[in-house]
Amino acid sequence: MANVNLAVIYYSSTGTNYELAKWAEEAGKEAGADVKLLKVPELAPQEAIDSNPAWKEHAEATKDVPEATSDDIEWADAIIFSTPTRFGNVPSQMKQFLDMQGGLWANGKTINKVVSAMSSAQNPHGGQEKTIQAIYTSMMHWGAIIAAPGYSDPVIFGAGGNPYGTSVTASENGMVEDVEGAVKHQAKRTIEVATKIKNG
Amino acid sequence: MANVNLAVIYYSSTGTNYELAKWAEEAGKEAGADVKLLKVPELAPQEAIDSNPAWKEHAEATKDVPEATSDDIEWADAIIFSTPTRFGNVPSQMKQFLDMQGGLWANGKTINKVVSAMSSAQNPHGGQEKTIQAIYTSMMHWGAIIAAPGYSDPVIFGAGGNPYGTSVTASENGMVEDVEGAVKHQAKRTIEVATKIKNG
Amino acid sequence: MANVNLAVIYYSSTGTNYELAKWAEEAGKEAGADVKLLKVPELAPQEAIDSNPAWKEHAEATKDVPEATSDDIEWADAIIFSTPTRFGNVPSQMKQFLDMQGGLWANGKTINKVVSAMSSAQNPHGGQEKTIQAIYTSMMHWGAIIAAPGYSDPVIFGAGGNPYGTSVTASENGMVEDVEGAVKHQAKRTIEVATKIKNG
Amino acid sequence: MANVNLAVIYYSSTGTNYELAKWAEEAGKEAGADVKLLKVPELAPQEAIDSNPAWKEHAEATKDVPEATSDDIEWADAIIFSTPTRFGNVPSQMKQFLDMQGGLWANGKTINKVVSAMSSAQNPHGGQEKTIQAIYTSMMHWGAIIAAPGYSDPVIFGAGGNPYGTSVTASENGMVEDVEGAVKHQAKRTIEVATKIKNG
Repeated sequence: MANVNLAVIYYSSTGTNYELAKWAEEAGKEAGADVKLLKVPELAPQEAIDSNPAWKEHAEATKDVPEATSDDIEWADAIIFSTPTRFGNVPSQMKQFLDMQGGLWANGKTINKVVSAMSSAQNPHGGQEKTIQAIYTSMMHWGAIIAAPGYSDPVIFGAGGNPYGTSVTASENGMVEDVEGAVKHQAKRTIEVATKIKNG
Repeated sequence: MANVNLAVIYYSSTGTNYELAKWAEEAGKEAGADVKLLKVPELAPQEAIDSNPAWKEHAEATKDVPEATSDDIEWADAIIFSTPTRFGNVPSQMKQFLDMQGGLWANGKTINKVVSAMSSAQNPHGGQEKTIQAIYTSMMHWGAIIAAPGYSDPVIFGAGGNPYGTSVTASENGMVEDVEGAVKHQAKRTIEVATKIKNG
Repeated sequence: MANVNLAVIYYSSTGTNYELAKWAEEAGKEAGADVKLLKVPELAPQEAIDSNPAWKEHAEATKDVPEATSDDIEWADAIIFSTPTRFGNVPSQMKQFLDMQGGLWANGKTINKVVSAMSSAQNPHGGQEKTIQAIYTSMMHWGAIIAAPGYSDPVIFGAGGNPYGTSVTASENGMVEDVEGAVKHQAKRTIEVATKIKNG
Repeated sequence: MANVNLAVIYYSSTGTNYELAKWAEEAGKEAGADVKLLKVPELAPQEAIDSNPAWKEHAEATKDVPEATSDDIEWADAIIFSTPTRFGNVPSQMKQFLDMQGGLWANGKTINKVVSAMSSAQNPHGGQEKTIQAIYTSMMHWGAIIAAPGYSDPVIFGAGGNPYGTSVTASENGMVEDVEGAVKHQAKRTIEVATKIKNG
């Protein structure tokens, strides 16, 4: 039975979604998948990044994380997206990456990827639901298969009970809720579904 | 300057949204509006209600609250909806009430109502955003003017930061967050916008 | 390899979604699935139905179609929903049916169903996208796996290019677009995904 | 009574949304508003633009249209957005522009703008509803007042009946539906609501 290729694709300015993505990577490897941890390209000018010490520090700390490409999407059997909210929707950086897959899409190479998504926001109800669903809307255009976690494990209730995907409130002092278990459950479930789709 | 007619229309099985609705009613009166507090008709059979003591108790306690009608919609300059989540969407009871306004709609009598909405869920991310937005989607069909609170007052941040409308997590022991101030701000803002639309 | 159990669950007042559902049933059988064609219970009073000749005629013509139950959901490996739009959302009849599956949901029996949805509206942009997505939001709460068609076959472009699910404009004279091929493709794809999930 | 300041803000690669925006500008002026027609900054590299003759031609034809800035948002009483769909959501160019208004937002300067939106897609159901609603979700974060057209004029039915905002199918040969009247109605309605909000 072939291993699932999992791409964990994130955008992060100050580190929250990088942390979520690393948990998904860890759980994906434990579940036997071949995993790539990938960031989407930054769009902000260097001066904007430099003006925010936390952003600058995170950008430097993750400068060696490879950037996601169309080849990664083509390679992947499963994709987990992790992205902050900007005004109830994905940031332009994540949207730009999705938009640039038009060539793959036109050639039918986005079909049947198994997908789930995670998000963060500064406020508990500041787009944590909507941003994950914005990813899923685009994924329906791709012909992807969406494996939202629902309430498939009790750990989800303790992490805020987001059935669309794991989400977390990101304060200046870090994550408010403990969502590590929910992220890892989500990653394992995504791989389980992708294993069936790949080998079924 | 004519008073604003405000209809606060809610569905509640065990009392959370009734409480939210009463706060909106109170703030509406303080703001000088003529206010009606109205429940949507129940669809569940009596035996289902009777089998849940909290539901039964709430149904009896609110049996004298008038049921909302098309006449109330026609009368209203502003409407505040308050509704729990059922699987990330409004309950059938609320949807049935909306569906039955097809006659008003066809006669153009739903246009330019000023609307906002509130919600509750058992989980912090269990549809609190989506359910409010489901109401707004229907309101766009009505040609209503949507006055979501956004972050128009600091009280919103303390209440969970839901820019679409006030929402609350409803546990077995009652509301988890203190949202009274956010509800009252939302009601006042809805009336302010409606005052301008009515008299502008 | 076990056959997929497919439940095609629809609401229809004057016949459009019944027709869509029958095409899905036909394609499902051709694809080797065990198929049940099921309607959701009506909520409207008989006098409302009787006042609309087309509604009355359809209700009588389909009085022998079985009503969907929780047992059917439990039985199903795959579900295709077909529902008209009411103000950019599912009608209360469909919502009531979904709401009543709370017992199944609480016992984890809605997880991993493979789902897709179809819709109709009187206007091309009168909720055909939103209504299908309202179903999917609820399905995420169920822990279902969503197999929207995307652009997985050229027939979709000819049918209006709805990647979320097949939809049709329903005029007084019947369906405006020819969507039979898109419905049948969607049904086959739903079964293909469900076959992998069931046997993978 | 003070004139309404209307900003018509669009993104267009090959001209469809530029045309929609110009119709809105024209109707806005006729309705007595002070109108600015503004494009959002391009993110695509010049080589991508140059590789598509229609894109290149449109970029050159509109090189003198001013780019929208935060000052324009602050100036505006009303905003009409016009944007194509990219995978069921706004393009990254439009999202980048919205994302960059975080400073204005943090200072409360996005509150009470009266907003509506328009869209286009290659397929009739390829995101025309969803993309407009993605704009509205962000606008709720801004505390804007949303004046979707609903079915406030018969011209809307002839233009595809999109209650969220005017939308059009953009083929290689231009717009499929005649939406000029619907755009102009939407612009006038947006200004009427904004006039009441500004002067009420």
